[in-house]
Amino acid sequence: MPSAPLLVSALRGSAVPRPPIWLMRQAGRYLPEYRELRQRSGDFLRFCYTPELAAEATLQPIRRYELDAAILFCDILVVPDALGWPVTFAEGVGPRLEPLRDLAAMERLGLEGFAQRLAPVYAAIREVRRGLPDETALIGFAGAPWTLAAYMIEGGGSGEFYAARVLALHDPLAFAKLIDLLTEATARHLDAQIAAGVDVVQLFDSWAGILSAQAFESWCVAPAARIVSRLKTAWPKVPVIAFPRGAGVRYRDFLMAVPVDGLGLDTTVPLAWAREALAGVCLQGNLDPAALLAGGVVACREARRIVETMGARPFVFNLGHGVLPETDPAAVGALVDYVKSVRLPARAGP
Amino acid sequence: MPSAPLLVSALRGSAVPRPPIWLMRQAGRYLPEYRELRQRSGDFLRFCYTPELAAEATLQPIRRYELDAAILFCDILVVPDALGWPVTFAEGVGPRLEPLRDLAAMERLGLEGFAQRLAPVYAAIREVRRGLPDETALIGFAGAPWTLAAYMIEGGGSGEFYAARVLALHDPLAFAKLIDLLTEATARHLDAQIAAGVDVVQLFDSWAGILSAQAFESWCVAPAARIVSRLKTAWPKVPVIAFPRGAGVRYRDFLMAVPVDGLGLDTTVPLAWAREALAGVCLQGNLDPAALLAGGVVACREARRIVETMGARPFVFNLGHGVLPETDPAAVGALVDYVKSVRLPARAGP
Repeated sequence: MPSAPLLVSALRGSAVPRPPIWLMRQAGRYLPEYRELRQRSGDFLRFCYTPELAAEATLQPIRRYELDAAILFCDILVVPDALGWPVTFAEGVGPRLEPLRDLAAMERLGLEGFAQRLAPVYAAIREVRRGLPDETALIGFAGAPWTLAAYMIEGGGSGEFYAARVLALHDPLAFAKLIDLLTEATARHLDAQIAAGVDVVQLFDSWAGILSAQAFESWCVAPAARIVSRLKTAWPKVPVIAFPRGAGVRYRDFLMAVPVDGLGLDTTVPLAWAREALAGVCLQGNLDPAALLAGGVVACREARRIVETMGARPFVFNLGHGVLPETDPAAVGALVDYVKSVRLPARAGP
Repeated sequence: MPSAPLLVSALRGSAVPRPPIWLMRQAGRYLPEYRELRQRSGDFLRFCYTPELAAEATLQPIRRYELDAAILFCDILVVPDALGWPVTFAEGVGPRLEPLRDLAAMERLGLEGFAQRLAPVYAAIREVRRGLPDETALIGFAGAPWTLAAYMIEGGGSGEFYAARVLALHDPLAFAKLIDLLTEATARHLDAQIAAGVDVVQLFDSWAGILSAQAFESWCVAPAARIVSRLKTAWPKVPVIAFPRGAGVRYRDFLMAVPVDGLGLDTTVPLAWAREALAGVCLQGNLDPAALLAGGVVACREARRIVETMGARPFVFNLGHGVLPETDPAAVGALVDYVKSVRLPARAGP
């Protein structure tokens, strides 16, 4: 039996010789080969829905850097799109959706045909699997219900998503119905990705950090607990990572309620605190993407600090946010080389 | 001797019959009388530098709501402007500055003439003082060095301020010189506001929350410690509030290093945590501005939760961020009436 990929071992809490490394948005615009590939399909979601293009974009950073994991090239907004709330991407503007300001319009959403619409995503997973070395893990992902609802209600990106926050405060019962539907859809989407062959899944709650304390409990923690519990029942051996970005002190509340194997930490989390307060889970993160933007020397200097702070504790090296489009590919190469050169002290056995 | 204003008593840790209330951006665009006043000066900074206009804008919400404190109507960017780095405001766009991308350009900045350039701000304080009831505190404020540096380097607002973060990582010594100058300028500006008659000062580090853990120590905590220590030496009786917005778990580190009387909490901080972890200081916050946007009924419901969680602990009621321009003035009125109707249980004596 071949040994598990390094990422899977670390997420299971097994001793590993060095921290595995992958990077959020490791596939994307900072890579010239991606920009070239991207020209083959004008529409961004069509690109995601074309298995050979999505698979190729997924594999590009693996070929270039031999990272420990590939993450499926896709977008979190395929879920609302597949629920019948169309999403378009304007060049340089980001996603555009019809703003869902009246929750009665929710009746236009439905799970009928959901899996069929996302079939190309699952086909891309099978395609990637064929091109991926055995030692490289494949990560599937989805956006968490609050983050998806925020985009749908706002009609696109925002920094603050006040329309969504107001709607949730104004009519919590109707908002809960939307969250319930997105919870069911997200669970199904992650389940189908595992069935198609991913080794690990990550749940991105990219906008969890803007929620007030009470809203965080209701709209971030509770739905994540339902999704992750369901996955752990159906697929007990598949590690689940959650990334409630910006949770701050509430990372602890999240961890107490959601049975994850891995917890993604954004850049602002002090690792010395996390090491103590977030026990019993494999932490992942949290290099500042700005350090990578500052070049390979700065990135490696900052990475060393992180690696030394985490020591032999179960840990996955990553950024605290995605690779920025302006990043020099050579800086990413230097960072990956550094992390792959680390040799952890042996950990005391269990 | 008249008793101290309610805000000052609460910040000193004295028992008060109810929490004092003031709101960040309580003067501003959501008020029709402000929009009318604003038309009298096209340029925003000129408006701030005209004592009678700034004083009138400061007093408008006091007349309408009888809040427990007025906060001087001004902008944090008067400090770079007075240091010789001109700031303009374009309608609906926000502040614009020449991006300070080469730290050598710092030599164009200087403290010569600084106090004279800001003289109209101090004149506005004396003007407000004359129109303010004795029981209403007057708050002066300044932006913290990191937040000012971020705007200067970026050349305006941003959500992430990557240019500033990269520069700080790339050339920490040159960046420290900029922070040192801004630390000196900020301390002088707050000192001069106290000399002109404010009862309380607040230091706004609006963008502290995007800094990585290490950068937070160097660029948020350390400069704040220097500024606040200096003020406490010169004016031991004047309460100082700091608002390192988005600090998360680092609110605790901040509090351990910076001798503040009050600590402003953003919306994301769970008060049950803050009550325990942030002892020995008067907390201030943290109603979601979205609750006020959702109307008076929602705002009062959420405010009650906050008041009940804080109990008789030293506390100042406020938002977790500024009043939004779309807010209904009647909702603010309902919130103020509710908080003024609260009667706290008597606290055990010291």
